[in-house]
Amino acid sequence: MKSDKRMAGRKNGKEPGNESVRHRLLAAATDLFTRKGYAATTVREIVGAAGVTKPVLYYYFRNKEGIYLELMQEAFSRLEELIAGSEGDRGSASQKLLRLCDRLYTLFMENVKVARVMYSIYYGPQQGAPFFDFDSYHLKFKEAVRRIIQEGIRKGEFRKGNPEDMTWAILGAINVAIEVHLGHIELELGREGLARVLRLIFQGISAEKGRRK
Amino acid sequence: MKSDKRMAGRKNGKEPGNESVRHRLLAAATDLFTRKGYAATTVREIVGAAGVTKPVLYYYFRNKEGIYLELMQEAFSRLEELIAGSEGDRGSASQKLLRLCDRLYTLFMENVKVARVMYSIYYGPQQGAPFFDFDSYHLKFKEAVRRIIQEGIRKGEFRKGNPEDMTWAILGAINVAIEVHLGHIELELGREGLARVLRLIFQGISAEKGRRK
Repeated sequence: MKSDKRMAGRKNGKEPGNESVRHRLLAAATDLFTRKGYAATTVREIVGAAGVTKPVLYYYFRNKEGIYLELMQEAFSRLEELIAGSEGDRGSASQKLLRLCDRLYTLFMENVKVARVMYSIYYGPQQGAPFFDFDSYHLKFKEAVRRIIQEGIRKGEFRKGNPEDMTWAILGAINVAIEVHLGHIELELGREGLARVLRLIFQGISAEKGRRK
Repeated sequence: MKSDKRMAGRKNGKEPGNESVRHRLLAAATDLFTRKGYAATTVREIVGAAGVTKPVLYYYFRNKEGIYLELMQEAFSRLEELIAGSEGDRGSASQKLLRLCDRLYTLFMENVKVARVMYSIYYGPQQGAPFFDFDSYHLKFKEAVRRIIQEGIRKGEFRKGNPEDMTWAILGAINVAIEVHLGHIELELGREGLARVLRLIFQGISAEKGRRK
């Protein structure tokens, strides 16, 4: 929770006191969706954990669907900003990829609970959750990686290979770093580990550099 | 479902008729866990979908927890066999990695629904599901990859790098191939795509081979 100020009782959602209530509701919903799952969480539990009454939730988010969509929208808008912000990046293609992946990993670390909710709903059963277009964001990130790789190939920094396959190799590194953290094993790749794995993919693991695709 | 023979009505679980009932129950539970989630699925729904009565489920699996554990146990025993079977593999380290990953991907494709249940429970909320030690299997697979990589380094096939990081790069490729399939985008890496991505990781994507780690 970003703030634990008590609700100021004002009606205007833009007031700081109400902003705090809104955040309390979002944080409570995230916690419950992460622990119990979306389907098993009730509006009653969310308002109870946030210390407000049901009409307060209805006022800000209309219903459980609304609070879920708002959570996802906030996290994925930040992903979108991150991608847009990377477009003016300078340096080699490798440096750009390292930076883009580092930023995504950092964003993920700041939103681990939301990521967990996303994983369970995206890969698992929908649980009655309303449709959220995760794929469009996944594709945007993939396209950002691919664009940098194509630039790297064009400038001779990367070899003339299949940019799609190269994109998957990079996405594999970021996925594994995220999943090691989401999993329950006492292992952690972290930002440094992710950068090391990416450099390995740039350089390859074979002792001799082949030219085969 | 492997068989749709009617239950033969015999008491002995080893009879073929009963084996078919057991499979019907497992298939029905997998379907429901995948569609509705573990928590939201009831014993009544499982037996309804399998066309049997509750006591039949209790006889074979005791309860919902039992049928879930059996599902996971069956799938992960096959992973264990796959790993054990790979130990006598011949060829270069790259060939062994390609083969091991191909086998895992094939096993996953034969158990997509079980994988989906695993993803939602492992990465998402536990949903009241009994503990299943997914991590021990993940670690076993990771160790199998690492063992081949260390052998590759020792024999000079792979360069002298960090075998742990190399292992993550390989696991990233397999994860991404699996997740592209589990996801909802109109994309598919498939067995061939996975092999291409792995070869890319062997060879690297940089045009010039560096010696830096």
